[in-house]
Amino acid sequence: MKRVLIIGIGAGDPDHLTFQAAKAIAAADVFFVLDKGEVKGDLVRLRQHLIETHAAGPYRIVTEQDPERDRTTPAYAAAVEDWRARRAAIYGRLIREELADGQTGAFLVWGDPGLYDSTIAIVEEVADGSFEYAVVPGISSVAALTARHRTSLTQVARPVHLTTGRRLAEDGPGADDVLVMLDARTAFDGLDDFHIYWGAYLGTPDEILIEGPVAEVAEQIKQVRAEARARKGWIMDTYLLRRIRKAEHPES
Amino acid sequence: MKRVLIIGIGAGDPDHLTFQAAKAIAAADVFFVLDKGEVKGDLVRLRQHLIETHAAGPYRIVTEQDPERDRTTPAYAAAVEDWRARRAAIYGRLIREELADGQTGAFLVWGDPGLYDSTIAIVEEVADGSFEYAVVPGISSVAALTARHRTSLTQVARPVHLTTGRRLAEDGPGADDVLVMLDARTAFDGLDDFHIYWGAYLGTPDEILIEGPVAEVAEQIKQVRAEARARKGWIMDTYLLRRIRKAEHPES
Ligand SMILES: C[S@@+](CC[C@H](N)C(=O)[O-])C[C@H]1O[C@@H](n2cnc3c(N)ncnc32)[C@H](O)[C@@H]1O
Ligand SMILES: C[S@@+](CC[C@H](N)C(=O)[O-])C[C@H]1O[C@@H](n2cnc3c(N)ncnc32)[C@H](O)[C@@H]1O
Repeated sequence: MKRVLIIGIGAGDPDHLTFQAAKAIAAADVFFVLDKGEVKGDLVRLRQHLIETHAAGPYRIVTEQDPERDRTTPAYAAAVEDWRARRAAIYGRLIREELADGQTGAFLVWGDPGLYDSTIAIVEEVADGSFEYAVVPGISSVAALTARHRTSLTQVARPVHLTTGRRLAEDGPGADDVLVMLDARTAFDGLDDFHIYWGAYLGTPDEILIEGPVAEVAEQIKQVRAEARARKGWIMDTYLLRRIRKAEHPES
Repeated sequence: MKRVLIIGIGAGDPDHLTFQAAKAIAAADVFFVLDKGEVKGDLVRLRQHLIETHAAGPYRIVTEQDPERDRTTPAYAAAVEDWRARRAAIYGRLIREELADGQTGAFLVWGDPGLYDSTIAIVEEVADGSFEYAVVPGISSVAALTARHRTSLTQVARPVHLTTGRRLAEDGPGADDVLVMLDARTAFDGLDDFHIYWGAYLGTPDEILIEGPVAEVAEQIKQVRAEARARKGWIMDTYLLRRIRKAEHPES
């Protein structure tokens, strides 16, 4: 039997790695890397560093070109589905051809594999009984964000909404506490009833944190974000919106 | 200056611990433990095990009685607030009296400190400039649940709602993907449009996983849950509800 491990590696800090993930890396014979052909050299280096630090015994790294995603179409979900199908073909072939019986292959996934990442769904899609697979949880950018801001994602007995920048822009906040990921359009702008906890490049030496009422800090975030993005060539940011309470104790 | 660390220790498996958390434990001189006077011996043992494994140098453990929470009142938020105020008095005294200048004190928090846990808010409340504090993120029961079920918390380009059993019972699901914690009343019962991924004692030797359409597995979960709870004296469970899609591709 072959074995595939989908390993969460945390959101930027090498010390986000769990002992479980380190053991999973040590157990792997082959690491599958989808090369995004991007400028995100830091991300590639972190992955490389974790493999070198925690691998035990000989290993191979198999790199494949990540298929291009159509970012021009407004049919976001359909474009992602198409991209996923092409990725599935690659993953299936990697597991079939690059992994021998009895060997363990590993996908190292940014953050937690359960949060806005397609690896689990793709591996499930290509699962044909010829391999078993398991998922190792990781520190997500959500946990990293709230820890660095020393705030809680949730308030006592209240729900929280996790969403994307696109959905926030289309549907509005829809809750008093909203965590936003994948926002390329600074969709928080104008949500002046909210306090924002914003973080970019969390857990890395480039980390930036800004916090305050949206009405007061939105311009600053937009400027800092644009500058950082221009300087590094890419940006990863996420934020928590918390509706500013009018009275001190609206509930009793 | 004194220093206080709020350390997420993961949701049950000792190997959920991150390297960052292990280093934070090694840096601590004093561990503050709020004794819940419960039967949750396993949880106490895990904490003890992590301290013994990762402490470097001499340390002290200071145990305090956790104040009782009024679980009889329907004013849930008010009861929690009152309980929090009494906890704050204890935390403040612990940091003032049990920590010498230059020393580091640590609170070990179950799962991730940002998820339905009051430690961050309480430490912030008692922060008076006499100590600095930091938060170390941890693997949450949410990440543990989805990893063990090998499913994703989020679907492509879709939001997810995190809530409590109480709010689910009062407000309904309110989204197509809902993650429920702190549910003492099996509030999923009757939500027959949903698929459920349920997990109890995640990451521990007692772990139980059940998955399926609510209409088919609700009775089984309720029975297994009642039995496990009777056997161990307590239960910790959480679940993901995902609305069953009628058509294959409702979006385009
Ligand atoms: C494709 S999703 C993957 C999320 C990842 N699985 C996780 O658990 O964080 C990418 C998004 O995650 C967020 N993100 C990931 N790492 C981050 C970091 N280090 N700092 C800020 N945001 C981050 C950003 O919102 C980014 O657009
Ligand atoms: C007070 S909250 C604390 C949550 C914790 N901070 C976390 O990140 O998971 C307690 C709730 O978390 C969930 N939980 C925590 N650990 C769990 C485990 N090992 N298995 C199942 N549910 C768990 C249950 O829903 C429980 O009612």
